[in-house]
Amino acid sequence: MSLDLTGLDVTADTAVLAAAVADAARLLPVKGIEPLLTGLLLSGQDDELVLSGTDRTNTVRLRRTAFVHTDGEVLVPAKPLADTLGALEEPEVRLVVEGSRLAIRTPGGRFALPLMDGELHPGVGALPAAVGQVSADELIALVGKVASAASRDDALPLFTGVHVQGRGDRLALVATDRYRMAIGDLPWQPEGDLDVLVPAPLLIEVAKQARTAEVITIHADGSRFGLSWPGAQLGTVLLASTFPDESRHTDAPVDAVVEVDGEVLAGAVRRVAPYSGPRAVIAVELGDSGLRIRAADPQNGEAEETVKATVDGDRFTHGYQARYLADALRVFGSARLRLSVRHGMRSTVIALADVAEGDANLRYVVMPIRLPSD
Amino acid sequence: MSLDLTGLDVTADTAVLAAAVADAARLLPVKGIEPLLTGLLLSGQDDELVLSGTDRTNTVRLRRTAFVHTDGEVLVPAKPLADTLGALEEPEVRLVVEGSRLAIRTPGGRFALPLMDGELHPGVGALPAAVGQVSADELIALVGKVASAASRDDALPLFTGVHVQGRGDRLALVATDRYRMAIGDLPWQPEGDLDVLVPAPLLIEVAKQARTAEVITIHADGSRFGLSWPGAQLGTVLLASTFPDESRHTDAPVDAVVEVDGEVLAGAVRRVAPYSGPRAVIAVELGDSGLRIRAADPQNGEAEETVKATVDGDRFTHGYQARYLADALRVFGSARLRLSVRHGMRSTVIALADVAEGDANLRYVVMPIRLPSD
Repeated sequence: MSLDLTGLDVTADTAVLAAAVADAARLLPVKGIEPLLTGLLLSGQDDELVLSGTDRTNTVRLRRTAFVHTDGEVLVPAKPLADTLGALEEPEVRLVVEGSRLAIRTPGGRFALPLMDGELHPGVGALPAAVGQVSADELIALVGKVASAASRDDALPLFTGVHVQGRGDRLALVATDRYRMAIGDLPWQPEGDLDVLVPAPLLIEVAKQARTAEVITIHADGSRFGLSWPGAQLGTVLLASTFPDESRHTDAPVDAVVEVDGEVLAGAVRRVAPYSGPRAVIAVELGDSGLRIRAADPQNGEAEETVKATVDGDRFTHGYQARYLADALRVFGSARLRLSVRHGMRSTVIALADVAEGDANLRYVVMPIRLPSD
Repeated sequence: MSLDLTGLDVTADTAVLAAAVADAARLLPVKGIEPLLTGLLLSGQDDELVLSGTDRTNTVRLRRTAFVHTDGEVLVPAKPLADTLGALEEPEVRLVVEGSRLAIRTPGGRFALPLMDGELHPGVGALPAAVGQVSADELIALVGKVASAASRDDALPLFTGVHVQGRGDRLALVATDRYRMAIGDLPWQPEGDLDVLVPAPLLIEVAKQARTAEVITIHADGSRFGLSWPGAQLGTVLLASTFPDESRHTDAPVDAVVEVDGEVLAGAVRRVAPYSGPRAVIAVELGDSGLRIRAADPQNGEAEETVKATVDGDRFTHGYQARYLADALRVFGSARLRLSVRHGMRSTVIALADVAEGDANLRYVVMPIRLPSD
């Protein structure tokens, strides 16, 4: 860093700067054993303000246009800066170093944050090389659906990740918490090989930040993963694990195929589930004219609903954890769905009944569970 | 109860019934040492379904039009009934006793709740005599503002109450948690004396339930309080305490009067407060051309904002707990405010700068607090 670590005087659009600082701050700790990591590096030069920070796992670097009166770089606490900028009502704001403070100035107000020692901050390196490109809209939509199947329990890091893999001209995203699995793929333009396990939180954060981007570039090497679009670079450390293979769920023979309105089925599951008692298991019976959704518990009473559906193949009844089935149906919204059901304790795969060639595709695996009466 | 405790067969509008059951259920426990109190009594007779329940402190009785096929009365768990009715999508629903269950039936579904022993339920008595009437809109608006100053800490029941008192043709509502006090009054048509201490939660619940009412009738005797409007009766047990007198705050001489835009002042308080450190005290300086809002803390930095205001009287600086000042300003919204400020540790009273004769009126008392530099 060749910039003056004591200078900086810059005027920026308040809304643009507030949004960028809030985006960066979400990836940084608000306290912890390394207080410097709560800081955001602000670097002003050539009519551009660069915001960067890291929690040692994730890195963020955002560039925004600004009027730089005096070049310089400072480190200030990210969360308080985000809070103050987000509460301002004036259209323009000036950030200027005054002694040991960064002053946030508006016509009627002055807010001064203590400077932190930027020399001791680990800094934010460049992302690895680009390996391909993908439509921002499609990636954001698919990440939101796939990542919902990842675990939030850090005790088993493998299951907090999303497996991201290039398969020819498709990019596959797979997540599982061991009880259900989401398998998505979408078109991409590969420039290299890609087979990595990425922490789900970074992908979810990208979905929040890249809403105005058109194309997202994917970066990876043997230890790091990154996503970039104009003005933004987000990076993270890869999870080092072998991910479960999904082909035994998607390629195995099927005993019955059900086509059903996803929203209608979700409504029935939502209404019947409260009657399922402490094990929270509901029964789904494949019948000639549709599905019968049932639950019973001596304490809570009992419930059943019939849902119109076409059923091809065998007739049998499976139990499912109500919450997992509801989660799976939720990601598909109101579309018409195809359920591929297998005998025994083998997986049920939920997918859209109709997928156009070249569209993003999603399959959601839920496992049957023994019914109280089995 | 002369009704058959095993019968009941009724068809009702789903949305109307779901809303009424949800309203009643919010006042009832979902578990506890008296499981019967989790139940809602449903009584069908003469094209009317009456829903009633009690937690032994509060009582609720709601009447709704319904098509009664078979008269009867049953007791069923209120929360599960509310949840199932609230999730239904069909316009009509049938409630019918089937053996030891109350079945909730729609064309595609059946949900069956266990009947509870209605004979053992304490029942819901009539409200005390009416003592006056008040506009529903005005009462709801004022309750929302006054009750925000009541304490949520049950350890001191006195401060969880709202003092409701008839004063000629005005009805006064006063609440305090010892740190701030809200004093409201509105026109009413008295039919008797009224001077009671009412648990704030019941008044807040009325504000949720009586949105379509025009006039609310107030009921009270020496031990109970109630509010009624067409189709609804809510009651509660009075708190037995003497309430602090507010006249020393409202009638004492004033050292300075400030007129200021409430929303602008609230914005400045909101932005400056995060810099006030662990004591969360902000300084408000009365100046010639307005107010200066300041906060400082070595750890957090410092902030100040100037707010245009007219100041009549003395010039001095008070500290305030930032949160209490923000709470007080919030209830006034965007109106122009008059602050009556006194020297020393004596109360500051916030009120609307302009109140029309015959309108509801509100004054909010906040106490100054020593500044770190005092």
